[in-house]
Amino acid sequence: MRGRGNLRRRRESPVAKLRALGELVYDQIERGEHPVLRIPDRSVSNIIYDERLRQYVLGNKVTLRTTRNVKHLRAFAQLIWLAYFSKLLSESHKTSTLRDVFYSAQAYRVDFEDQDESDERITELEALLGMAREEFNVYPEERSSIFGNLVIEYNVPGYEGRRLDLTSHPDGVMIGPALTTADFVETDAEMVIAIEKGGLFTRFIEEKVHERFKAILVNTAGQAPRATRYLLRRLRSELNLPVYILTDGDPWGMHIAMVIISGSANAAHLTQLNVPDASWIGVWATDILKYKLPYDKLTDADVKRLRELARDPRYSGDPWRSQIDSFLEHRRKSEQEAFAKYGLTYIVDKYLPDKLGR
Amino acid sequence: MRGRGNLRRRRESPVAKLRALGELVYDQIERGEHPVLRIPDRSVSNIIYDERLRQYVLGNKVTLRTTRNVKHLRAFAQLIWLAYFSKLLSESHKTSTLRDVFYSAQAYRVDFEDQDESDERITELEALLGMAREEFNVYPEERSSIFGNLVIEYNVPGYEGRRLDLTSHPDGVMIGPALTTADFVETDAEMVIAIEKGGLFTRFIEEKVHERFKAILVNTAGQAPRATRYLLRRLRSELNLPVYILTDGDPWGMHIAMVIISGSANAAHLTQLNVPDASWIGVWATDILKYKLPYDKLTDADVKRLRELARDPRYSGDPWRSQIDSFLEHRRKSEQEAFAKYGLTYIVDKYLPDKLGR
Repeated sequence: MRGRGNLRRRRESPVAKLRALGELVYDQIERGEHPVLRIPDRSVSNIIYDERLRQYVLGNKVTLRTTRNVKHLRAFAQLIWLAYFSKLLSESHKTSTLRDVFYSAQAYRVDFEDQDESDERITELEALLGMAREEFNVYPEERSSIFGNLVIEYNVPGYEGRRLDLTSHPDGVMIGPALTTADFVETDAEMVIAIEKGGLFTRFIEEKVHERFKAILVNTAGQAPRATRYLLRRLRSELNLPVYILTDGDPWGMHIAMVIISGSANAAHLTQLNVPDASWIGVWATDILKYKLPYDKLTDADVKRLRELARDPRYSGDPWRSQIDSFLEHRRKSEQEAFAKYGLTYIVDKYLPDKLGR
Repeated sequence: MRGRGNLRRRRESPVAKLRALGELVYDQIERGEHPVLRIPDRSVSNIIYDERLRQYVLGNKVTLRTTRNVKHLRAFAQLIWLAYFSKLLSESHKTSTLRDVFYSAQAYRVDFEDQDESDERITELEALLGMAREEFNVYPEERSSIFGNLVIEYNVPGYEGRRLDLTSHPDGVMIGPALTTADFVETDAEMVIAIEKGGLFTRFIEEKVHERFKAILVNTAGQAPRATRYLLRRLRSELNLPVYILTDGDPWGMHIAMVIISGSANAAHLTQLNVPDASWIGVWATDILKYKLPYDKLTDADVKRLRELARDPRYSGDPWRSQIDSFLEHRRKSEQEAFAKYGLTYIVDKYLPDKLGR
């Protein structure tokens, strides 16, 4: 087992960043100026693909939000309230959903037209702070889970110093605020396998993939939520474990893997949510032929999606380009479950060792 | 803490039931007869509302599936294969998803046109055995979770005799095959609160509702999956705990509560999946006015749904009837999160005690 010392991570303090934001505004007021915020521009024209980071990032353009312009006042006030509310959340160790934030504003008589408006302000605050909303305690609904030989130590109130072995519950452990912020204390795992679907995640636990492959298993439950992508990144960087991704063999599964690896355009203002050197190990287009998998024909929507992906700079290298070509050639797609044609354990006994080169 | 002895539950053995089904077929063959199965008829004309059980049940009509009729042979063979496969699953303590079953058939050269056909056969097997598919190890994807002062003991392979305290993980513990089949060993809980949304479930954990109200908390994550309804029934019957249900204040939330209480028409062939004396404690239509909650106007679809529910025998009593009337009168709906207008803890500090009469 690895010792704990080097597994502790350093967290940037959202409270310090929020306080700095407040001081910026106060300073401007004290100098007799109308406060102005410089918000990174998230429009398409300012989203660029960074080859080195292997993800989309924002360019240098900023939007000025100034209290000198009466049309900006509403959004400015909303943003400042949101920063205040986020600081309250962080200091009191409470979490909130996007929906909660929308309703909470009414307690302060801050007016949001609808949740779209409060969500937009939350994204602006992320861009301003360079910090995902989960860091200032605004979380989505939980649905991903994790299982494997890893002992964590909680940091949430009432649980400080308490530990959990992530093999404690064979249905998997939910990835929520407490898990995402926990320290990694001890592990003998040698890899991480992220899986698109809960059914296969359960199969892997039943077949003891965590022991046979010394793997930490993560169920992304479809497109990985940001908290889960952040956790995968931490498993990669803090434990120095390779990350493998297993999805359905179709353009949508391929893109689930890509978003884990290279982030999403929607989150181009954040750079801590991807795992650049994770590997998509399947189900590849070429696997569908090689393993003679049951398949469905690609639909028109599938083909359209493949052509879109072919134009996306994230898909310019391999295996992406060659797999897109293979999909377009044979026009087939297969789900992870298709391996059950060869028995329920085939995917663990044969396919996984093949793909991991074991 | 309650002692463990009386908390042990008796499980009917699916393997014994599956063997009995096989013997029935063998006996007919040995008597020189064409094997026939009598499958409870699940058509609408045979679904009746049982006032005593307070749920939909099937009437006495059966469908004969006979090998004397060549048109029945395919479905008959599929059903027998499915029974065989389910017995394999149960004996080897493996679980499978509906999708896995569809693909697994191909390993045996049993032909299903599509998953609809294999799903239909699985439902027929449920009706034949009077047993939910979870009992013979066919599970849906997991998404519900649980938290509270309850110690469970696992029965799944590799975990026999191991225990977990359901407060071990503050993000909640997944409700999957291992949890559903575990024994309840020890608890000091005095009630169960089922909650429609993960955000509020997390809020309740953060505000220590499990301690303040001695409550076991269940996140149904929308419409409660059958495994979760089955678990709620076990918490009611084995631990003798009252079950309270908290949903959004709209027809859809109301129906989430109703399905937990009275089951669904789709599962009328099963009688162990509901909690007849559970209480829907809110958000009621009348609460929307009483607590001056932020609201949206009912849509046409909402109103149509309310009129459908008004004709449903399950909705003939109170609070259902009066709440439908109130919704139709003020035409408003409010989400659970709407209480955040009064601060994030108001729902725990004020609303919950009000509704529980504390």
